[in-house]
Amino acid sequence: MIRHTVVFSLKHAAGSPEEQAFLRDALVLTEIPGVERFERLKQVSTKNDYAFGFSMEFVDQAAYDAYNIHPKHVAFVSERWVPEVERFLEIDYVAL
Amino acid sequence: MIRHTVVFSLKHAAGSPEEQAFLRDALVLTEIPGVERFERLKQVSTKNDYAFGFSMEFVDQAAYDAYNIHPKHVAFVSERWVPEVERFLEIDYVAL
Repeated sequence: MIRHTVVFSLKHAAGSPEEQAFLRDALVLTEIPGVERFERLKQVSTKNDYAFGFSMEFVDQAAYDAYNIHPKHVAFVSERWVPEVERFLEIDYVAL
Repeated sequence: MIRHTVVFSLKHAAGSPEEQAFLRDALVLTEIPGVERFERLKQVSTKNDYAFGFSMEFVDQAAYDAYNIHPKHVAFVSERWVPEVERFLEIDYVAL
């Protein structure tokens, strides 16, 4: 299992319709084969400046690779992520 | 539910006995009341420079607060975390 996470902040104002639309439309990622345990999260620690997170799991690297090149992922990145996300950090985990 | 995560790198050499001891001894945190779903993780994304992660969940903020001041947590932070961790980032999540 590989857990893919990304913590991020949006360019949109907190509570704005644009923010809500981005978070809603990100659910398209759940339609991609291999995406398991998809979560949309609010980042609440005061020790960093990010506002949200996504987390998902893949059974193996092949499933993760297929996700990365899936047209729905590629489109989401180019049409929504790049223009609307201010800053982000990707963190991926496997069990120790 | 609050998911408390920390991604970090150690001062120890990769694969060293000191690294393994730190990761093993961190299991003391599981003895603290309120700590649920504790995970020791290997960070595998090439898009950041951290090596490991811990993840745990608390049922609510009161449980999280109790963990923070629990003597076993306080001792682990002062005796192991501060001297052995090179850099870290805390990220906490709640469901959106």
